[in-house]
Amino acid sequence: MKHTVDLQKYNLRTDLTIEKLEQNKITNSKIKKSKYKDIIIETVNINANDGKIIDKKEGLYTTITFNDTTDSDNRKNLEHVLVRELKQYININRDDLVLVVGLGNILSTPDSLGPKVIDKIMVTNHLYELNICDSNYQRVAAIAPSVTGKTGIETFDQIKSIVDKIKPKLVIAIDSLAASSVSRVNKTIQITNTGINPGSGIGNFRKEISYETIKIPVIAIGIPTVVDATSIVFDTLNYMLKKYSFSKNNINNKKYLLTYNNINYLNKDTKIDTKDKQMLLGLVGKLSNEELKKLIYEVLSPIGYNLMVTVKEIDFIIDTFATVLGNSINKIFSS
Amino acid sequence: MKHTVDLQKYNLRTDLTIEKLEQNKITNSKIKKSKYKDIIIETVNINANDGKIIDKKEGLYTTITFNDTTDSDNRKNLEHVLVRELKQYININRDDLVLVVGLGNILSTPDSLGPKVIDKIMVTNHLYELNICDSNYQRVAAIAPSVTGKTGIETFDQIKSIVDKIKPKLVIAIDSLAASSVSRVNKTIQITNTGINPGSGIGNFRKEISYETIKIPVIAIGIPTVVDATSIVFDTLNYMLKKYSFSKNNINNKKYLLTYNNINYLNKDTKIDTKDKQMLLGLVGKLSNEELKKLIYEVLSPIGYNLMVTVKEIDFIIDTFATVLGNSINKIFSS
Amino acid sequence: MKHTVDLQKYNLRTDLTIEKLEQNKITNSKIKKSKYKDIIIETVNINANDGKIIDKKEGLYTTITFNDTTDSDNRKNLEHVLVRELKQYININRDDLVLVVGLGNILSTPDSLGPKVIDKIMVTNHLYELNICDSNYQRVAAIAPSVTGKTGIETFDQIKSIVDKIKPKLVIAIDSLAASSVSRVNKTIQITNTGINPGSGIGNFRKEISYETIKIPVIAIGIPTVVDATSIVFDTLNYMLKKYSFSKNNINNKKYLLTYNNINYLNKDTKIDTKDKQMLLGLVGKLSNEELKKLIYEVLSPIGYNLMVTVKEIDFIIDTFATVLGNSINKIFSS
Amino acid sequence: MKHTVDLQKYNLRTDLTIEKLEQNKITNSKIKKSKYKDIIIETVNINANDGKIIDKKEGLYTTITFNDTTDSDNRKNLEHVLVRELKQYININRDDLVLVVGLGNILSTPDSLGPKVIDKIMVTNHLYELNICDSNYQRVAAIAPSVTGKTGIETFDQIKSIVDKIKPKLVIAIDSLAASSVSRVNKTIQITNTGINPGSGIGNFRKEISYETIKIPVIAIGIPTVVDATSIVFDTLNYMLKKYSFSKNNINNKKYLLTYNNINYLNKDTKIDTKDKQMLLGLVGKLSNEELKKLIYEVLSPIGYNLMVTVKEIDFIIDTFATVLGNSINKIFSS
Repeated sequence: MKHTVDLQKYNLRTDLTIEKLEQNKITNSKIKKSKYKDIIIETVNINANDGKIIDKKEGLYTTITFNDTTDSDNRKNLEHVLVRELKQYININRDDLVLVVGLGNILSTPDSLGPKVIDKIMVTNHLYELNICDSNYQRVAAIAPSVTGKTGIETFDQIKSIVDKIKPKLVIAIDSLAASSVSRVNKTIQITNTGINPGSGIGNFRKEISYETIKIPVIAIGIPTVVDATSIVFDTLNYMLKKYSFSKNNINNKKYLLTYNNINYLNKDTKIDTKDKQMLLGLVGKLSNEELKKLIYEVLSPIGYNLMVTVKEIDFIIDTFATVLGNSINKIFSS
Repeated sequence: MKHTVDLQKYNLRTDLTIEKLEQNKITNSKIKKSKYKDIIIETVNINANDGKIIDKKEGLYTTITFNDTTDSDNRKNLEHVLVRELKQYININRDDLVLVVGLGNILSTPDSLGPKVIDKIMVTNHLYELNICDSNYQRVAAIAPSVTGKTGIETFDQIKSIVDKIKPKLVIAIDSLAASSVSRVNKTIQITNTGINPGSGIGNFRKEISYETIKIPVIAIGIPTVVDATSIVFDTLNYMLKKYSFSKNNINNKKYLLTYNNINYLNKDTKIDTKDKQMLLGLVGKLSNEELKKLIYEVLSPIGYNLMVTVKEIDFIIDTFATVLGNSINKIFSS
Repeated sequence: MKHTVDLQKYNLRTDLTIEKLEQNKITNSKIKKSKYKDIIIETVNINANDGKIIDKKEGLYTTITFNDTTDSDNRKNLEHVLVRELKQYININRDDLVLVVGLGNILSTPDSLGPKVIDKIMVTNHLYELNICDSNYQRVAAIAPSVTGKTGIETFDQIKSIVDKIKPKLVIAIDSLAASSVSRVNKTIQITNTGINPGSGIGNFRKEISYETIKIPVIAIGIPTVVDATSIVFDTLNYMLKKYSFSKNNINNKKYLLTYNNINYLNKDTKIDTKDKQMLLGLVGKLSNEELKKLIYEVLSPIGYNLMVTVKEIDFIIDTFATVLGNSINKIFSS
Repeated sequence: MKHTVDLQKYNLRTDLTIEKLEQNKITNSKIKKSKYKDIIIETVNINANDGKIIDKKEGLYTTITFNDTTDSDNRKNLEHVLVRELKQYININRDDLVLVVGLGNILSTPDSLGPKVIDKIMVTNHLYELNICDSNYQRVAAIAPSVTGKTGIETFDQIKSIVDKIKPKLVIAIDSLAASSVSRVNKTIQITNTGINPGSGIGNFRKEISYETIKIPVIAIGIPTVVDATSIVFDTLNYMLKKYSFSKNNINNKKYLLTYNNINYLNKDTKIDTKDKQMLLGLVGKLSNEELKKLIYEVLSPIGYNLMVTVKEIDFIIDTFATVLGNSINKIFSS
């Protein structure tokens, strides 16, 4: 799991590129959007320029957004989409070695996605070595390098040294991510060819696993499983504003009257008027988004309450994701 | 774990009596406060009148507040306090049977405290039956009845039927709780002689385990391990106000100047001026505490974001608490 | 798990009725035998007389024997057979309550079958109570009462008190068993309508869960997951004898010559000649089966080596069985 | 865990050098024997010649034999001995890096010792890198490379590549072993400076981790947690013989009469007479030890019953060993 709060300096970052694009209002025209059932797939090719603006690397990003994985049909649909989208990123021969890397800490539930996926991966590299592998199955190896705090070794160094030894043609790295918006937690899978930073946190020495550093293509698959308290508060204030503006504008619209569970203010592209903002939130309403986030962070951090939180059902959710990701990768490599 | 959000109607409740007292500004004179190292112990005897105000039962409540349990010395201190305080609640003979009940779901980390404590409890009831138990050790039995959603049986009914069968003289029930303030999560142990409600949530049929319902004294031990998003946002807005007021009042105090990590606004009994409130938060600043919580709840709930959350380190924290509670109970019954 | 070795007196028992029948050479004519793929199903109705001989209760016993469950097709076949055979034992209405009881200790792998099956069971009793259950699904509750050594309570007493409270029309009890033959370990499922004894071991006070004791039909499902060292040695000496006799008789049969992996001596109904026995094993060869077992037991027990053992792959095997049993029970109650 | 049964050819091996010495009757004069409470410590320096005889490498071997680890005093005594003995093998500076390697598969209980010890090890290498480590604590890193069947990578290759990268001055490797005698299972810790072979089994390509292969001193710590059925049967026949001989010789010794639990035949250096052997066991009694083992193996293996077995309490035993080993290693490196 990547630690998103820089200990040295103020920094509010997200692991999700789609969030960065939204925050920076990068034009939607660049995002290729499609749907499968109620799953939304957004693909975007970030160029050098946009990358600089949103502090993300150049490359391809696919964001899969879904509602629910408690239902087995929904899980099947998600697997279907995941297989299809992942295949876009993979271009290798059957006997090329693929190394699947499960980042994170198996002993910490919200951070255990990577290692739990590794438990599901069918490995064949050792069978290839012995010439006893069915050649219809991709040559696959899989490791879960744990986290630096448990091994004392930079995760990058572990992976790099194994890559140098077994020389895969492709690395697939899986990790839990941090979202900067409540709406993304456990509802999004991000795929990218730009690599990944396994989080060390301490001293912030994070070495990226990417084509640039290991000279082998890296596909990173991440699911945000935690969010910080700052984002929860920031999001809520925005929902509050949207609800207020929407209510004011529709005060005479009978359709929207009376329904307590009216959530139309979210679906609509509700505009928030500057005046409304100040009316509702006073001085706080005068802040820009960035300033507001900074204020919340500065209030919570010194007193230790900018907690990284996860939902209380995380055990079941992680198990579901591990199965979906494991099945999808096995399917791609066996068919 | 008790589900604190009533699905049928608006309701913001907390499992912690100390929070209720604070929210309702019940005079501190009734709370007996002491310290051991940096652990704070607050004991209060709620009478019928106060009980009605704070919607809590008459009886004795002890709240133990601590900072940190990662350090082994701190854990030992906490065990020391817990043993001492629990003993105040226990008045039985050595061969009286005690039934320890671990409520909650072992498969859900933040809700697994009860069952994990049960794994640590030394049971002797079966040895007493065979007359092979060292009589210096209390007669103890222990069960983890799981949750209604996993058994299909009301947890109360399970416990009641076993109580009727083995006829203990005392029941000790352990459960994870929900806090309504971030500052309480994983930092508080509540002991009470008023009983406990194992959460069913569904349809809200919760049957209380207490002296009134099972005719045997019940000591409930609870630790808040989750908090809802509403409370996080509410708390943050209050911290924001306190910081704002404090800064304004100390604008010329060189001592408080410049320090980014200044958290004095929390320690001081910072008064929040009504004008400050409206200045900083506009219309929102005009709301009473109750109204503000209600507003946040109404914004988050319909869109599914009033999440019950837990910190990402919950696995380690629960293991620590299970050890501390298990050790303490075993110590009381073996010495 | 039932402890099969009586600590007070010499006693070599098995939990499997089919083994008892084999040991006592009860005529095969009473056993109804069928096959599905390579799974063998043997059903026998033990009458009072035979029951006395083999020290088993009167009633119906179904023994399902299979080779391997590592293959997913084999698992599906086993599920198919299990569903079909279990249905023979079940005769209730859809809204009759069924209580599934998972006996054993979740913390001890070979004894964790029962609790792990419970984790898979779909429970509906609480939904029926609220009138929100799809009436196509059987009314089901499920408990894992753990073991007396962990609760201090007789397992029978726990179950009886819950049965009295919720009044099911049928109890299905699942437990790990002990086999008295290596060939049965993890290769057999026994179903019976005669009930089951959860093992307490200590002092040997085991109270049976059966129609006689709880006044409700009980179906017991057991899988042998352990075997004692005595049985391993006894079996091996017998295989040795069979191999010796077979080799002697086929010394001139070119077909059986030279093959190291010749296991025909097992498939054939190899007769062991009394003279061969004494030739090969001396004084030991003069002992009856019962005497030989007694001798091995008397050699191993005093020195603490009559270990209850399990295979080293038991973790994966238990998980497989829990899934197969859970799926089968859910299928029966949902279709 | 090392797989001890060679699939290609007949081979009965043990991971324990002390067993090999006993089997080959190497003179006791070379073994330095001491006691601490009821723990026996045997140290032997195997030279080239003896090594050839017993098929073990030249080097130092320490065997610690104990009875029981269920008692906390016994565990403390074992830790005391382990710390003292391990220190004999370690000769490094405080800031020299030590790499602790936990071999085996966390998902298979009897094979999970290595990874479970790793979970207990305090690592500091990353703190040294940042110059924030208390220099009284040894520089330590720790990895659990899992098993080839789960990673697809030769375990040796994983370790070698990490060793090349982080350049430790000492490797401590921990693994579950196979015993060839029931009396050794879970009762012995072997320490050696000769290295270790992580088991791959498949195709039998096992690359040794030792000074010869990685050019860094390797201390291997192993505990036998499994034994094969062949050894159980072989041991039992020998106990049978000893009991028979002892009984015959003491037939007139009133002291040994009548006691069912008489285990003196084990304590005494009971001689087995060749005639007794044949009398008791016929043709089987004429076989040498090696021939008898071979016979048992040839009977059991083709029919799939030369199972690798473990005791049914293995879950608790492994947890105890992991704690004892983890504590001991941490103690050595922090004091």
